[in-house]
Amino acid sequence: MKRRLLLVSNSTLHGAGGYLGHCQQQIQEFFGEQVKRILFVPYALHDRDSYAKTAREKLQSLGYEVDSIHEAVDPVEAVRKAQGIFIGGGNTFRLLKTLYDNKLVSEIQKRVLQDGIPYMGSSAGTNVATVSINTTNDMPIVYPPTLTAMGLVPFNINPHYLDTNPDSKHMGETREQRIRQYHEEPDAPSVLGLREGSMLLVEGNRATLLGSTKARLFSRGKPATEHEPGSDLSFLLTDGV
Amino acid sequence: MKRRLLLVSNSTLHGAGGYLGHCQQQIQEFFGEQVKRILFVPYALHDRDSYAKTAREKLQSLGYEVDSIHEAVDPVEAVRKAQGIFIGGGNTFRLLKTLYDNKLVSEIQKRVLQDGIPYMGSSAGTNVATVSINTTNDMPIVYPPTLTAMGLVPFNINPHYLDTNPDSKHMGETREQRIRQYHEEPDAPSVLGLREGSMLLVEGNRATLLGSTKARLFSRGKPATEHEPGSDLSFLLTDGV
Repeated sequence: MKRRLLLVSNSTLHGAGGYLGHCQQQIQEFFGEQVKRILFVPYALHDRDSYAKTAREKLQSLGYEVDSIHEAVDPVEAVRKAQGIFIGGGNTFRLLKTLYDNKLVSEIQKRVLQDGIPYMGSSAGTNVATVSINTTNDMPIVYPPTLTAMGLVPFNINPHYLDTNPDSKHMGETREQRIRQYHEEPDAPSVLGLREGSMLLVEGNRATLLGSTKARLFSRGKPATEHEPGSDLSFLLTDGV
Repeated sequence: MKRRLLLVSNSTLHGAGGYLGHCQQQIQEFFGEQVKRILFVPYALHDRDSYAKTAREKLQSLGYEVDSIHEAVDPVEAVRKAQGIFIGGGNTFRLLKTLYDNKLVSEIQKRVLQDGIPYMGSSAGTNVATVSINTTNDMPIVYPPTLTAMGLVPFNINPHYLDTNPDSKHMGETREQRIRQYHEEPDAPSVLGLREGSMLLVEGNRATLLGSTKARLFSRGKPATEHEPGSDLSFLLTDGV
């Protein structure tokens, strides 16, 4: 399988150089020198012009030209011609709904899984690359036609994974409790909790944790496990984990 | 309109006497002495038996017998015969889906809005009483047939409303940012952010904020406003706010 993915937890890391600052080296290694133009998908935020400007400025500084899909006359055609894709963060429900509304889900799947163009996602853009958006943190501000996402990997991710604060007096469910509730439902796949600062590199059937923070893995009926940056997580790419 | 609702932000308040401890006086004033039996709806949690036991013990201590709907042969018939209803918290998506699966939405609407039986909700049980669950904090662990809820009031609520922590290094959206994103969508109604410790009492066309904390109100295109316990919020019951 040609699949190449860079699935980032968060676009901006506290104190790490602004938008995409903490992962710029990994971005350059991922897209390399063969990709000249990246197709940016700003659908997760309301102000697409402003969002495209932010992404364009940053990626230009790394040596890439950016086409924003919201400026394309035909978004499906834009995906067909793309050398590489970057879907940015924001609201995951809004993003997934717009991908379906514009008939882009199967087209992106085809380009990434069959043609092997590199796909980078951040936050919501990482959620939509997985089995489903069942483990997003976002508010359901719109109703997508399904929670099933692009399935570029056979598990789910929880971006911005947050450890329980033992001093908190807030009684809302912790992140871990929320993921455990998901695993009370039948057929729920594993969930990789990517803390801010971490990202997953997938190349074919090999998956590696990159970045500066550990990831926490939740599987149905098993204790959670911790994984250090640099860990080989290829076992997650086997269906049915 | 006969409507009587007690919409509580949270079932358990830190340091305030355990499950429903912080609102037990309001519960007794709300259900009064005429209601002898309360129909409890435990659908938001996976372990319904355990949840019903918790609710039963607490409500019995306040003088009410509890029938849990998950023990009824015919849940619709249980709603038809109920003297009062309490829907507990947990996962809002799971709760709303189960209410639709069991054809209870229209039946509860009828009993509350036409027959005037008292309805108490806590957390997820408060979300489903409003226009929609678009402003829940919960993870979308299942896919309900719609996000439209029972519409017992013409606005939305965000339970467990949480103020922005200026010291946080976490880059996920704040609660206020999430609600603002909801208001970027067309036709989104006002959202009452009920901090933990607060609750809304609705009697006919009168709404009053009760409890120990302020509430924060968000309306599309307007600055947020703060409301003290005891405030008259009846203006929220006018459609189209």
